[in-house]
Amino acid sequence: MKQELPNQIEAQWNSRTKPQGSLGRLEDLARDYCMIRGTAHPKLETLGLYLYAADHGVTDEGISLYPKTVTRQMVANFEAGGAAVNVLARKHGVAVQVIDAGVGVGTRNFAKVAAMTVDECRDRIEAGRSDARDAANRYDLVGVGEMGIGNTTSAAAILAAISGRSGAEVAGRGTGLDDRGVHHKGQVIDAAIALHGLSGASALRILEAVGGFEIARMTGFLMEAGKLRLPVMLDGFITGAAALVATKIEAATREVLFFSHRSAERGHGLMLDALDGDPLLELGMRLGEGSGAILGMHLVACAINLYLDMASFESAAVSRSEL
Amino acid sequence: MKQELPNQIEAQWNSRTKPQGSLGRLEDLARDYCMIRGTAHPKLETLGLYLYAADHGVTDEGISLYPKTVTRQMVANFEAGGAAVNVLARKHGVAVQVIDAGVGVGTRNFAKVAAMTVDECRDRIEAGRSDARDAANRYDLVGVGEMGIGNTTSAAAILAAISGRSGAEVAGRGTGLDDRGVHHKGQVIDAAIALHGLSGASALRILEAVGGFEIARMTGFLMEAGKLRLPVMLDGFITGAAALVATKIEAATREVLFFSHRSAERGHGLMLDALDGDPLLELGMRLGEGSGAILGMHLVACAINLYLDMASFESAAVSRSEL
Repeated sequence: MKQELPNQIEAQWNSRTKPQGSLGRLEDLARDYCMIRGTAHPKLETLGLYLYAADHGVTDEGISLYPKTVTRQMVANFEAGGAAVNVLARKHGVAVQVIDAGVGVGTRNFAKVAAMTVDECRDRIEAGRSDARDAANRYDLVGVGEMGIGNTTSAAAILAAISGRSGAEVAGRGTGLDDRGVHHKGQVIDAAIALHGLSGASALRILEAVGGFEIARMTGFLMEAGKLRLPVMLDGFITGAAALVATKIEAATREVLFFSHRSAERGHGLMLDALDGDPLLELGMRLGEGSGAILGMHLVACAINLYLDMASFESAAVSRSEL
Repeated sequence: MKQELPNQIEAQWNSRTKPQGSLGRLEDLARDYCMIRGTAHPKLETLGLYLYAADHGVTDEGISLYPKTVTRQMVANFEAGGAAVNVLARKHGVAVQVIDAGVGVGTRNFAKVAAMTVDECRDRIEAGRSDARDAANRYDLVGVGEMGIGNTTSAAAILAAISGRSGAEVAGRGTGLDDRGVHHKGQVIDAAIALHGLSGASALRILEAVGGFEIARMTGFLMEAGKLRLPVMLDGFITGAAALVATKIEAATREVLFFSHRSAERGHGLMLDALDGDPLLELGMRLGEGSGAILGMHLVACAINLYLDMASFESAAVSRSEL
């Protein structure tokens, strides 16, 4: 009974006018989408991107090239339609929902104190769950993206704490740090893990101690999407940190996740390994915002179009292989 | 003076609201497109795909799983809009030109005699040049694709002859040969190279001896596109063989070429190495038709949209990095 749906999907692909398996990962994408939706005849018409923004107190440690005010300025840019993600969203028919998860009232500096309280974290997770319920009513496929000056430090700290890696292994250039800046960032991460006693701690406690408000809200979004069987395309390093926390808390979350690209941010490879994710694209992108997620969603949409709309050998009167 | 255009392009990218270089290869794609067009303010509105079909006499050697008649049947499928390439073309606004380069009256079996005469080859090259002049009047960016049962054997023979590789190194599964079939295909290639004395032969003579009519016509298309500075997205293994011949005859052809994807066909890696091409995508596709080329053209179109349409730091009032 469990095998019936995969067999139906495979039969549909093999009826199409092409050599078996010749569309490669596009065939896998359509199968995975069908499996999430529980049908061999899925609909994929509406695409949404949830773009989470928040400020980070850890910027006080000098771990970013850009001033903290850029988070708020970029939110205005998203709302005006001038950012990279807007250009890509218009091109691909993706509706962008910009969500203020804590701009202005950001997290505290986790180099000194916990980034958020237990209540603040729970509130963000619940808000993210609510977003996902809204998304499931509106879209067939969603992406997640983020903006928050300082958030690669938060995401790297989450990765280090969950996977037992050192700051030096997970810290990357972010928006463009030099070697010295990356070294300092790694030290900030190591010190925070020691300060908060995160070795062996639960994913939820790690999120509270060194997370960001956008990461917490995305964590809730992803967990609820897992429950609702809403397919989600991850973007890069920061959305991966939310996925890492979400899958540690609710393992079934993993089943609805697609991995759009391998970011140029150092540590994303370790993040993908920890999530057992095989990204679709490797274009050296490291922007965030959901820019990679939109390109990934487009490949799923192409895959479903091919799966649904190609002619069959019978309808097109094309001879099958002589095997 | 020569450096002025690259500097203009870089300045435009760096004025956009994103960290420098954070769009990775999309930034390279826009730069390369601008360099081909000779302007920092290019237009990319019209996309065309030239899809070349032909029959191959070498199918008499049992090197394909599909009967030769499938070439003609698939041409009908392209014209009816039911093939994978049609689905992708509709989704991306790409106009498809299906070109009969020799369906029915295909090449001779190159295991016995030369695939084509000197005149037949020259005629196909001239027809391809004419296609490219037409394309340059109609489209800002073009892709090339192909269909021809047996043509991976022809393309592999061209690669082997030009690069000095053995049949075993270049022969792949094509539409789905098993190990024994691949071994046989490699032997057919080695024997043909010996029969026609192709070791050290010119690219043109190799094309005449073991090429296909679609490959010859694509060779002409690519050489003329190089002259006209028309940007061309290659598809996979077969279009790569045409590019290999074209660049050997007219080296400047290389400057207008983009490489869409790394095909699952064995030998495509060697082909890309020989062309010094770094493909954009690696999705395990091995269909041909221009299916990979369309996905690659889409990435160039995204890159140009971002390059032209993103807000600047000034217009969006976003602070620059503190470097």
